[in-house]
Amino acid sequence: MADNHKMWQELGMDVETHDLLCEALPQAFGDVFLSQKDRPNKMDYFNMVVADIHGIRPSELIEHQKNGGKVVGSFCIHVPDEVVIAAGAIATGLCSGSQFWVPGGEKVLPTATCPLIKASLGARFDRTCPFFRICDLFVGETTCDGKKKAWEVLSEDAPMYIMDIPQMKRQDDFEKWEKEIKNYIKKLEELTGNTVTQDSLHDAILTVNAKRKALQRLNEFRKLENIPISGRDVLLITQIAFYDDPKRFAQMVNILCDELEQRKKDNFSVYEKGTKRILLTGTPLSIPNWKLHQIIETSGGAVVCEEMCTGIRYSEALVNEEKASMEKMIENLAQRYLGNINCACFTPNKSRIDDIIRLAKEYKADGVIDVNLKFCNIYDIEGYFVEKALADAGIPCIGIETDYTDEDAEQLKTRIGAFIEMLS
Amino acid sequence: MADNHKMWQELGMDVETHDLLCEALPQAFGDVFLSQKDRPNKMDYFNMVVADIHGIRPSELIEHQKNGGKVVGSFCIHVPDEVVIAAGAIATGLCSGSQFWVPGGEKVLPTATCPLIKASLGARFDRTCPFFRICDLFVGETTCDGKKKAWEVLSEDAPMYIMDIPQMKRQDDFEKWEKEIKNYIKKLEELTGNTVTQDSLHDAILTVNAKRKALQRLNEFRKLENIPISGRDVLLITQIAFYDDPKRFAQMVNILCDELEQRKKDNFSVYEKGTKRILLTGTPLSIPNWKLHQIIETSGGAVVCEEMCTGIRYSEALVNEEKASMEKMIENLAQRYLGNINCACFTPNKSRIDDIIRLAKEYKADGVIDVNLKFCNIYDIEGYFVEKALADAGIPCIGIETDYTDEDAEQLKTRIGAFIEMLS
Ligand code: SF4
Ligand code: SF4
Ligand code: SF4
Ligand code: SF4
Repeated sequence: MADNHKMWQELGMDVETHDLLCEALPQAFGDVFLSQKDRPNKMDYFNMVVADIHGIRPSELIEHQKNGGKVVGSFCIHVPDEVVIAAGAIATGLCSGSQFWVPGGEKVLPTATCPLIKASLGARFDRTCPFFRICDLFVGETTCDGKKKAWEVLSEDAPMYIMDIPQMKRQDDFEKWEKEIKNYIKKLEELTGNTVTQDSLHDAILTVNAKRKALQRLNEFRKLENIPISGRDVLLITQIAFYDDPKRFAQMVNILCDELEQRKKDNFSVYEKGTKRILLTGTPLSIPNWKLHQIIETSGGAVVCEEMCTGIRYSEALVNEEKASMEKMIENLAQRYLGNINCACFTPNKSRIDDIIRLAKEYKADGVIDVNLKFCNIYDIEGYFVEKALADAGIPCIGIETDYTDEDAEQLKTRIGAFIEMLS
Repeated sequence: MADNHKMWQELGMDVETHDLLCEALPQAFGDVFLSQKDRPNKMDYFNMVVADIHGIRPSELIEHQKNGGKVVGSFCIHVPDEVVIAAGAIATGLCSGSQFWVPGGEKVLPTATCPLIKASLGARFDRTCPFFRICDLFVGETTCDGKKKAWEVLSEDAPMYIMDIPQMKRQDDFEKWEKEIKNYIKKLEELTGNTVTQDSLHDAILTVNAKRKALQRLNEFRKLENIPISGRDVLLITQIAFYDDPKRFAQMVNILCDELEQRKKDNFSVYEKGTKRILLTGTPLSIPNWKLHQIIETSGGAVVCEEMCTGIRYSEALVNEEKASMEKMIENLAQRYLGNINCACFTPNKSRIDDIIRLAKEYKADGVIDVNLKFCNIYDIEGYFVEKALADAGIPCIGIETDYTDEDAEQLKTRIGAFIEMLS
């Protein structure tokens, strides 16, 4: 920890304020995670990563920079990590899931902005997150109004680059997205001084796909009748996926899956009989946002799948692995990163509704909770279609609106408890 | 009025509910407009149009349809009227400025959606606006989250067509917008059975420019020290511009301007000496949203300019009038409709800040009121830059958030009154 303090100071962080966060996290982590019984042993790696999340990984990133490397942060799963890796840089997620950073964001953004965005800007402006100090480039996108405009404010303090995502998915839009990826590659080549080659891009595609495959393998266990790992633990792993070294991460997930393989043979479940299977859908749950999982899984429910960016949407679809021309591989990236992400930022977004119904069946969900971060207008409006489709399919559903505070925890417990109770 | 009722019935309107609106409007109109002293005589035309706004113009549109013509409604000044007119159809605005329609919108949209959007959907779903019944095509765009997603809901009940507006203004984005305009032309040709020709498009460009020139001429009078027409009246005229026949409208505005020309010679002002000159900037004020103008102009202020879509942004820039190839004229349209509209939906949107500072000087504003419709995230966030730039320029500014209800009227009066008081 002494080393961490030195590092944080050198990063120009507000160490004193940051200490408050460091003090609060272990307690929260203990309550949500360590209190579970029958956790897989191989969660150890992920526990360690999270226990020192502002220490271990940041120091690796700084090491990389000392060797002349660059670090590129992004806020959305539309931004392809592959090209960052292919340019020899390290990609890291930057989405912020704690109320700790929200007041800092509210100094420069309207209160009526989604907490994810406010927390992200707060983390930078208040100098209380090492990742927000380390990044050489911050990559924003035009997915939602709040982010689109918040990047302008962030750019007053941080080096920003913006990708303009099409709001529809017609043939022309795929071509536009290819162009955006090409421009992004140029930007990364400038930043790093490296050239993205056919080899490096193909390698990167394999690297990121390997991470996805490990996560797919992990999620498969959640389809079992006897689920060998909790929803909380899978959420945590998925959240870590945004920050960790992709190769090591995939390896660690596979080691965990080997353990789960044995549990599967033993028909071992971390849940009691009669626990209700819940599909969560909606806005992302960034680290350390564990609130809903904790409430659901201490109210007689098991989260079996997250139809979310911090869930199945992150790993379900692979990039085509063919080693082809640069042109073709970029086309494949565009295909995956535009075509296979059914975010509410698109219009129309019927495919997401299809995903929800399909996933509810694949994961044998007893009910669906549609969660919306306060002031996220796109998911909120799309909830109209989600709830209609689920009603048509005869799958029980409730819509929940929440933010990063704990103020609504009691109310949520009551509502979610009643919902789970009602599931037959 | 008997005729109107028959027409409304034939349009499938909820006539009983609509009657409530019809009963309330004359009172509001009287309070805001007819109570003014020294109104120009030639406001008569506009008074008449508004007094029977759900009668006169709708019956013209229906007449056009009876003769085989089509009516196309839109919600944003990025959607070019020229191509609608060139296809032999009539273009009409559809934005809704009354609380009357909001509860209907809230049945299908989240409460945390901007009132303009809620009112628009309410007007359609509740069947209480003839324009929303008459249109053969509803043209939406992807400018802001709320609209982008609301069109999906609206499309369940109305024939929608969506234009995907780029969120940035680089060279590629202009090309994308040209493509969108071309697709839109195709759609209009299908709808109308007419072909957009070089002649018809050029004519339409001249027609819409003539309307803009008339509005420019009108707005010029507001730069005078002695202002011959109130801000309220100019707002009303601008609101009518979205609905009226463009040729007749331009003619009527020019007739009014002739009258104002005489007032100018006479150094005649509708305001008392010492009235403070206010520039309004922010979200649009759709008909019949007169609330802010009324408060400002009964609190010692004169609205001298609206840096808004229902203001100078609608008329300030002309489309290049050259008669060129279709290709070139469409490029000119894209140039005007993307390049010259500095809506907060773009990132970055520095040009709007420049516009505000420039307009404040041109119109010799004593102060600026930055108005935001509740839950409009893009303008709300951009307010950060607006207020900073004005502070830097030494121009007093307040930010106001409001909706379509009258609940905040007293509070606004107090705040705006104090602001105007403070202006030296
Ligand atoms: S929810 Fe949409 S905007 Fe947010 S991270 Fe996911 S894809 Fe990106
Ligand atoms: S949750 Fe919604 S508002 Fe928040 S960043 Fe994601 S898409 Fe934007
Ligand atoms: S404010 Fe923007 S989105 Fe709204 S009408 Fe104007 S240009 Fe269109
Ligand atoms: S005021 Fe803002 S939120 Fe409302 S329609 Fe216009 S841009 Fe969208």
